[in-house]
Amino acid sequence: MLRENNTLENKRHTLAHILAYCTQNKYKDVKLTLGPAINNGFYYDMEFKKDSKPNTNEDLKVLTKEMQRVIRSGGNFSHEEVTFEKAKEIFSENKYKLELIEEINKKGEAITLYTINFTKGDGADSDEKFVDLCRGGHCENIKDINEGSFKLEKIAGAYWRGDEKRDQLTRIYGLAFDTKEELISYETRIEEAKKRDHRVLGKELGLFIFSDLVGPGLPLWTPHGTVLRKQVDNFVQELRSEYNYGAVTIPHFTKPDLYHKSQHYEKYGEDLFKVHTRDGHELCIKPMNCPHHAQIYASELRSYKELPIRYSETTMVYRDEQSGEVSGLSRVLSITQDDAHIFCREAQLEEEMNSTWNLIEKFYSSFGFKKLTPRFSRRNDDAKYKGSDESWLKAENAIKNLLERRAKDMWTDGEGEAAFYGPKIDFMAEDAIGREHQVGTIQLDFVQPNNFNLEYVNEEGKREMPVMIHCAIAGSLERFLSVYIEHTAGNFPLWISPVQVSIIPVRENNEEYAKQIYKYLKENGFRVELSDSKNGLGKNVRNAKNMKYPYWIVLGDSEMNTNTITLESRNGDKINSKIEDVKNDLQKIVINKE
Amino acid sequence: MLRENNTLENKRHTLAHILAYCTQNKYKDVKLTLGPAINNGFYYDMEFKKDSKPNTNEDLKVLTKEMQRVIRSGGNFSHEEVTFEKAKEIFSENKYKLELIEEINKKGEAITLYTINFTKGDGADSDEKFVDLCRGGHCENIKDINEGSFKLEKIAGAYWRGDEKRDQLTRIYGLAFDTKEELISYETRIEEAKKRDHRVLGKELGLFIFSDLVGPGLPLWTPHGTVLRKQVDNFVQELRSEYNYGAVTIPHFTKPDLYHKSQHYEKYGEDLFKVHTRDGHELCIKPMNCPHHAQIYASELRSYKELPIRYSETTMVYRDEQSGEVSGLSRVLSITQDDAHIFCREAQLEEEMNSTWNLIEKFYSSFGFKKLTPRFSRRNDDAKYKGSDESWLKAENAIKNLLERRAKDMWTDGEGEAAFYGPKIDFMAEDAIGREHQVGTIQLDFVQPNNFNLEYVNEEGKREMPVMIHCAIAGSLERFLSVYIEHTAGNFPLWISPVQVSIIPVRENNEEYAKQIYKYLKENGFRVELSDSKNGLGKNVRNAKNMKYPYWIVLGDSEMNTNTITLESRNGDKINSKIEDVKNDLQKIVINKE
Repeated sequence: MLRENNTLENKRHTLAHILAYCTQNKYKDVKLTLGPAINNGFYYDMEFKKDSKPNTNEDLKVLTKEMQRVIRSGGNFSHEEVTFEKAKEIFSENKYKLELIEEINKKGEAITLYTINFTKGDGADSDEKFVDLCRGGHCENIKDINEGSFKLEKIAGAYWRGDEKRDQLTRIYGLAFDTKEELISYETRIEEAKKRDHRVLGKELGLFIFSDLVGPGLPLWTPHGTVLRKQVDNFVQELRSEYNYGAVTIPHFTKPDLYHKSQHYEKYGEDLFKVHTRDGHELCIKPMNCPHHAQIYASELRSYKELPIRYSETTMVYRDEQSGEVSGLSRVLSITQDDAHIFCREAQLEEEMNSTWNLIEKFYSSFGFKKLTPRFSRRNDDAKYKGSDESWLKAENAIKNLLERRAKDMWTDGEGEAAFYGPKIDFMAEDAIGREHQVGTIQLDFVQPNNFNLEYVNEEGKREMPVMIHCAIAGSLERFLSVYIEHTAGNFPLWISPVQVSIIPVRENNEEYAKQIYKYLKENGFRVELSDSKNGLGKNVRNAKNMKYPYWIVLGDSEMNTNTITLESRNGDKINSKIEDVKNDLQKIVINKE
Repeated sequence: MLRENNTLENKRHTLAHILAYCTQNKYKDVKLTLGPAINNGFYYDMEFKKDSKPNTNEDLKVLTKEMQRVIRSGGNFSHEEVTFEKAKEIFSENKYKLELIEEINKKGEAITLYTINFTKGDGADSDEKFVDLCRGGHCENIKDINEGSFKLEKIAGAYWRGDEKRDQLTRIYGLAFDTKEELISYETRIEEAKKRDHRVLGKELGLFIFSDLVGPGLPLWTPHGTVLRKQVDNFVQELRSEYNYGAVTIPHFTKPDLYHKSQHYEKYGEDLFKVHTRDGHELCIKPMNCPHHAQIYASELRSYKELPIRYSETTMVYRDEQSGEVSGLSRVLSITQDDAHIFCREAQLEEEMNSTWNLIEKFYSSFGFKKLTPRFSRRNDDAKYKGSDESWLKAENAIKNLLERRAKDMWTDGEGEAAFYGPKIDFMAEDAIGREHQVGTIQLDFVQPNNFNLEYVNEEGKREMPVMIHCAIAGSLERFLSVYIEHTAGNFPLWISPVQVSIIPVRENNEEYAKQIYKYLKENGFRVELSDSKNGLGKNVRNAKNMKYPYWIVLGDSEMNTNTITLESRNGDKINSKIEDVKNDLQKIVINKE
């Protein structure tokens, strides 16, 4: 039995009751089943007669209005505990409720009924009651619900108990918040997210495609999309070059021996793709890069003078995601990681994590993500973690020190979110419409250095074991770009935009001049596109706008005669200027990543 | 029965007889088996008694001397055809020859014996004869062999008829050429090739490693080796950017449907790696990129105005090479292709091939390959080729026109060397020690555009089919680098060298100054390494030399006091100068790829 008070959760649950009551009044012989609160409102699953059921948005509006009327009248909840027999008697006509009652009884729990006692009032259902089998958790009075703060959203099909072999029911979804403003803001955000859907924008802007012959979860990136990938990757490499990362290149296959030794095999068994060679050997396709990178470290005897050794590589890893999980770029069968591994001494741990944090911070702020929240992903009591308690303690302490030093009162706790080989800092970025995404990560690892017997010679000539830090900055190019496309709604800043400037000659006689401008900008390192005047000025400008190019240059007779250009921007700016000046201005914008 | 004359092949075969004769004289109870000419000399397989057989290089020298003595005396060949019975009688003590005689008889061929009739002379084996079962092909007189033009090379084990289940024999190898100069030049080349072996240099210069846990055929590239890869790849991309190639990115997996449609499945079936997803689907791992690239082309309706469309991508392909075939970098399970596909109109074909040829020529000359010979790889009568005779004729004519136009009297013919989907131009490059390697390739393809129903809209608004040109420039980064490492013997020019300049402080008090120089060069885009003065000057300079760095800078008190640097080069040059001047000079060398 849950407490009755006016939390949002309780309001949502209450609305489910009111929905059931109003639906029951309007549609004959409806059978109620279950109606919980969910994270943006509530729903109720019901069985309708074929000829008496809500179908259209209009039907939902009518029901919403009816619910508002009921709420205006008010009514409070009472509850009672009933016997198994009494409960069965009350719901004798409803097989769904009977099944629930049987279950509650079997568990030995109390069977409770909740009743709304509607207030006697003008035009209201005076003396009316609505009884439902329920565990409680409602408003004190239904009047406490702001009648503008909710709406019925949509009708969908659902199976009884989510089991596709059982009865098919009708689910009515409602959105509900504390205030009308919150409801509107939620709806606006959803509307905005739909417009920003990277799957839609990817198609519209020609960034990537899917082919039926190639299959789902396997995107093919066009030249425009590949520019995005390269700009992200180049930026990561540029950031890393300051810290002397050495780029390495590993094969995508390995004998299983590598993953047995690293202990990934038992952990990733199911997700691991395997091939069989025609001479009868099994090879694994890499789902991660750390064991390979550890082999490069282990190929020579290292000295403490060389540490930290930092390897980086942007490379694909392959994971057998179930096809139900594969959608757009968010989940693909092969992802491109901008991976890196640092091998360092224990004393260098905190400083190396700190530098990595710098990289992550610089990266996300350059892409316009304003807020980055670190999460301390540590282990829980689960048995799945490898390595000694001592090394876990060391690693978790190192992370905690850094978090306290750099992000006091800002970091969140992620108990049970550690990798099997060590704790990590995961970063959560908030996008332009307020959604949180898990992005870069810094992971500590004492386990793999031990598994692979990694070592270095210290000042006394003795062998010591290095610590390994795993750190992807973008994480996966596919996932990062899916987030980034939605973050910018495809309005990429100049430095990353696949086409930076479109050159549009007005008429055929301006084409030669247009070619000169095109050539000039291309030679100065810009990604430019030359339009065909035969398409017509209107269509060419429309295309530049639709493709969300940051700039286009219109070249007509007046520009030609004055040896100038007219630069227009996606933001609506328009200037007439010398091409050399425009070039200088645009180059500054690129360099500043504005 | 083969003609007797003084071709090199016949000289080599004759030497095999003489080797057999001399060996038989020296080692008792030796049984002769087979002794053919091979591409650098000859060998003879024999069965020796345990206690009477050649073992050492000294034994070979003695035998070589004996052969020279016999040759000086001279002798000519006679031959006779003998009956099956007579032959069996002559070789009754030699089960190997008996087996050969049975076989010849079974085939219904003539059984011939060849006899050397040694000339009566001073100290020679007067009136001596040596009879062997043979099909002929000798010098007219053994005196025709230049006695300095051959030498016995080595002793190896061999199985009778190459069958490891049969008798083990001893094989004596000889090198043989027309002149002594050619023998010496061959030996020098072999010696040189051994020193240049990319597997040895790869290890010595720390470019790539193999790991037992990862497996053979799967190299892991260190930071130094990855610099080589990137320099090659960047250069290819730089060359292609002049021709408006669009970089694309494809997944490494595909449904088999793609290869059924492209007709690669039936052709590559055996080499094709497959994975099985846990929800029961089969996916192929790409052994080539063309069908994927064709999908990107096919994702939009194309206009003739867009053509040629050029896609490029440096990406790994995977082929199930049998492990016997896997060695060093020459054959690996996954190779990195710098692949590109051009989709163009028939009328654009020759010009596109011509531009691609330009790229290939510029690429190989920049890497110091002086001679590039095109080969016209066309089809033969084999049934394996796909596509209509008409399109083959068109494609072969287009290639022939270009070859005649650009490389008259220089191209070679490669009948039967075409791909299954079309003819190609394969380029053969000669390396620094005169070996030929198959390098870049330009391939025409009318078959895949047809398989995938590729099309574009022409001037009249009607659909036409584009032609596809496949062109890898480096071919595979792994194979190219294996050739290039041997071509340069690891003495990479400045622009490609993993470390361009090593900074060597003489004593501890010079380290601060060294750091400044290091930082200055690094900020100016050089790949620099800073040595530790504690190692000692001698060791640091030796290391720079051993690692074949093009330059190193030595910084002692005199340099520090005069604010100069001393630059030494791999070639032995040494100058004292201002760092700014050295920087400018080195930058020029990089830009000119000297």
